[in-house]
Amino acid sequence: MVRLRERGVSSVALQFPAGLKRKAAEIADDLSDQGFSVIISGDPCYGACDLSLDLLDYADVLVHFGHTPLISNPDVLYVPFRVDFDPDVVRSALPFLRGKAIGIITTTQHTHILPGIVDVLRSEGYEPVFRSGGGRTPEPGQVLGCSFEAARIPGISEILFVGTGIFHPLGVQLATGAHVVALDPLTGQATEVDADKFLRKRHGIIEKARSARHIGIIVSTKPGQNRYALGKHLLSLCDRAYLVFMNEVSPDELLNLGFGAYVNTACPRLAYDDQIRFPAPVLTPGEFEILCGTRRWEEYVVDEML
Amino acid sequence: MVRLRERGVSSVALQFPAGLKRKAAEIADDLSDQGFSVIISGDPCYGACDLSLDLLDYADVLVHFGHTPLISNPDVLYVPFRVDFDPDVVRSALPFLRGKAIGIITTTQHTHILPGIVDVLRSEGYEPVFRSGGGRTPEPGQVLGCSFEAARIPGISEILFVGTGIFHPLGVQLATGAHVVALDPLTGQATEVDADKFLRKRHGIIEKARSARHIGIIVSTKPGQNRYALGKHLLSLCDRAYLVFMNEVSPDELLNLGFGAYVNTACPRLAYDDQIRFPAPVLTPGEFEILCGTRRWEEYVVDEML
Repeated sequence: MVRLRERGVSSVALQFPAGLKRKAAEIADDLSDQGFSVIISGDPCYGACDLSLDLLDYADVLVHFGHTPLISNPDVLYVPFRVDFDPDVVRSALPFLRGKAIGIITTTQHTHILPGIVDVLRSEGYEPVFRSGGGRTPEPGQVLGCSFEAARIPGISEILFVGTGIFHPLGVQLATGAHVVALDPLTGQATEVDADKFLRKRHGIIEKARSARHIGIIVSTKPGQNRYALGKHLLSLCDRAYLVFMNEVSPDELLNLGFGAYVNTACPRLAYDDQIRFPAPVLTPGEFEILCGTRRWEEYVVDEML
Repeated sequence: MVRLRERGVSSVALQFPAGLKRKAAEIADDLSDQGFSVIISGDPCYGACDLSLDLLDYADVLVHFGHTPLISNPDVLYVPFRVDFDPDVVRSALPFLRGKAIGIITTTQHTHILPGIVDVLRSEGYEPVFRSGGGRTPEPGQVLGCSFEAARIPGISEILFVGTGIFHPLGVQLATGAHVVALDPLTGQATEVDADKFLRKRHGIIEKARSARHIGIIVSTKPGQNRYALGKHLLSLCDRAYLVFMNEVSPDELLNLGFGAYVNTACPRLAYDDQIRFPAPVLTPGEFEILCGTRRWEEYVVDEML
């Protein structure tokens, strides 16, 4: 609110990811009571890569909740969303750690707890470190589903991921080759990551794509997910491929098009997380290179936007 | 293809509505064989109101299949899609007609059959007429789910709709007050339209919306569905409403926002056809005016974009 007053804006557009959208009405009421004219983005929002910049046609400023800055625009304000937990929960991960030098990573809603986790680990004789990955992950220790750069720490071969879900730690293992332990700070459950099963699945998906008569190379029209140059490179590898431009990569639309396989250059998590929802194999750029014979299976890379 | 050659374009973007999307690969192959560089829009497409103009950043021309021109843009080519049937099928509608002077309407895929239908009706002693509605419906006799203008024919109080589905003839009855007979040309089944049940349902939906704490007035960001001025007018009627901007009006996103009710200024058919999929009442602009007391129930209007 203070930042809005300082800017002297009168109209405000609000954007929230799905988990925070329920707060829209309350925040709109508050701003409205203070005299601001408020509009709301009702489109799906998966990250700061997915800014509703078109709403700047209707409002002075876009306030984007829940994510750290990714696209630099003077008319966009980013409001992170923090989720607290007791750093002591990290003790439940200790039995899984093999060495003393530990890289720590988390997602944006928990980065403020990392100093507390460092204290607990140090008190137990560990040497924890974390660093900013820069670029798409400006906060120290922060990773995204499309960027594991903060996990690439010189001299560190063991990583502790503090957060929910298995995708981030899996990506970190694939991206870094480190031993990765994942700790869910809300349940206190810790697990060692094993990418083998994941890789076997991906191998099967690549093989299934071989028989496709047509391959659609998906290019996102979202401002922070557009990899057109990569799409054109992939297109040059295969003469039965077409670029397919999409805003939302939805299973229904892939089914409607009816291509035998797709390559995803939009949000990297789509190919990994949503395969089960898709009617056809959806490969990552690296997997498509394997299919086309320009990359060896041994050189498998996890898809990242750096 | 000839039109593309004449223009001297080298790159072509293709866009199809859901029912025609399966043709994308084949048409892309043809164009590609002729030396054109081809890209495809993978987004949902519900009409010519829903042009993928953003693809003109990547191609010289956008070829839009299945709909008649709505947005005039020199770089957009419209390719209609025709579905044939035997005009004799109109005989099965005759028992339902009350008079001799009959207005005829249909949807774009069948407009080329109207002259044949006129011949059959004349041979049976009727006086059939059809006319262009202009604007969003350039073809003679053509109606859209958002425009029944071609059904407003001076001196005509009986309309024969030839096409599938019940929404268009229902809309025509509400828009014109005429006696409307709907003939499905593929099954040969004819029915008389009765809007009473429909209106009772809409009445219930308006009443259900009264208890909403917050009301979201949906404004479309699609080029041919944007009614921002109307949205602002509706906003002025109610102090617990906010403008919600959406590209796709999806049930999931309305659920995520959690407002008690919505008003739809995007595609008129959304409020009518998709109510069953939505988690909350979705009113038309006219229904919202009834809710706010600035329109009487007796003045109910079907939502159109003229």
